[in-house]
Amino acid sequence: GHTVVCGYGQVGEAVCMALRAARREVVVIDHRPEHLAWAEAQGIHTLVGDATDEDVLRRAGAERAESLVSVINSDPSNLYVVLSARGLNPGMRVIARASDESAARKMRRAGADEVVNPYQLSGNRIAAMMLAPRLSRLLSGDVTSEHFAVREIGVPDALVGCTVADLGRETGALVVAVWRGGQPVVGRPGEVLQAGDAVLVAGAVAEVEAVEGMRLV
Amino acid sequence: GHTVVCGYGQVGEAVCMALRAARREVVVIDHRPEHLAWAEAQGIHTLVGDATDEDVLRRAGAERAESLVSVINSDPSNLYVVLSARGLNPGMRVIARASDESAARKMRRAGADEVVNPYQLSGNRIAAMMLAPRLSRLLSGDVTSEHFAVREIGVPDALVGCTVADLGRETGALVVAVWRGGQPVVGRPGEVLQAGDAVLVAGAVAEVEAVEGMRLV
Ligand SMILES: [Ca+2]
Ligand SMILES: [Ca+2]
Repeated sequence: GHTVVCGYGQVGEAVCMALRAARREVVVIDHRPEHLAWAEAQGIHTLVGDATDEDVLRRAGAERAESLVSVINSDPSNLYVVLSARGLNPGMRVIARASDESAARKMRRAGADEVVNPYQLSGNRIAAMMLAPRLSRLLSGDVTSEHFAVREIGVPDALVGCTVADLGRETGALVVAVWRGGQPVVGRPGEVLQAGDAVLVAGAVAEVEAVEGMRLV
Repeated sequence: GHTVVCGYGQVGEAVCMALRAARREVVVIDHRPEHLAWAEAQGIHTLVGDATDEDVLRRAGAERAESLVSVINSDPSNLYVVLSARGLNPGMRVIARASDESAARKMRRAGADEVVNPYQLSGNRIAAMMLAPRLSRLLSGDVTSEHFAVREIGVPDALVGCTVADLGRETGALVVAVWRGGQPVVGRPGEVLQAGDAVLVAGAVAEVEAVEGMRLV
């Protein structure tokens, strides 16, 4: 499934670049052709048009998309897109930008699964920089190091029934947490991995990649 | 040392609330008294005035502050504050908001230690929500659970010379990483903790608090 991104300003650009780096398929909609030229040069599918027009969303494949991100620089436009998108594809994951708490509530009421307020997010991030400067750099990906990487990995069938200790022994990676039923629990050595679990693993890049490689076993 | 926050909009409010919850001393400056009324009701020191006026920064104690956060909704104003703050207190940590990459470069040139662009941050966060939804919720503090907490802790004198394994045995917490010389390394069991290290620990809340309590030993 692909992702439809509505709005190619700074937020949309950052979303597209990160998804592109992870090899996700993206279609980005913006009414300003000059904003899309660079995206197109990066090999991203682009569509010139107004995302508040349902026909444009349909042409972007919203009806069969896995997710839609509405990050236009206008709360009314984002709200309109969220409502249209929900009508076209009730099962799709919808993430919207909102510029204040009142807009955020409206986005959620209109069917957004998640809402990001750039200002509140920035304030929280600045506080984290002051209260836990190393942790915040590390976890935000500002520090990249061969010697430390942290990643979320869905537990592959091959690992169901193994313990956290088994996984560490096989790969050298540290299981920080096991995510089960919407909640994280600490990765105790004896914890048995179940179908549907995800693990948060830390380690050198090669170790973390070894865990990812086990998906293929 | 206290923190001076310039600008009490949504960003400033989020910064102040988080620092307040961590019992940090904050002085917030804004030229709009009505914006400061609520901050004052929360017991935050407030100062009505224009933060681009050096006398106002002085009255907020910028010369002896530990850090200053400039999150006014104007790049020129933030730049002006960063330059003034640097002049008043060269050793202070300065964090500024910038609305695009060009403004961010100027803030750094003027002496900001760190710069936050709300739009780029939001785009990166939305991508993280899609690529690693559980990890991003967990690490951003959206999930709070008695069974899982992650925290950054400076290694207290009492623990210098202990190993990562010792710390785990004493407290039950998992040492995810040791931060040394500006770089993280994975928390291998045999790693000996040194003065100036910080550790990133995960565990149940009580376990993480046990590590924090060892500062007092
Ligand atoms: Ca959904
Ligand atoms: Ca400094």
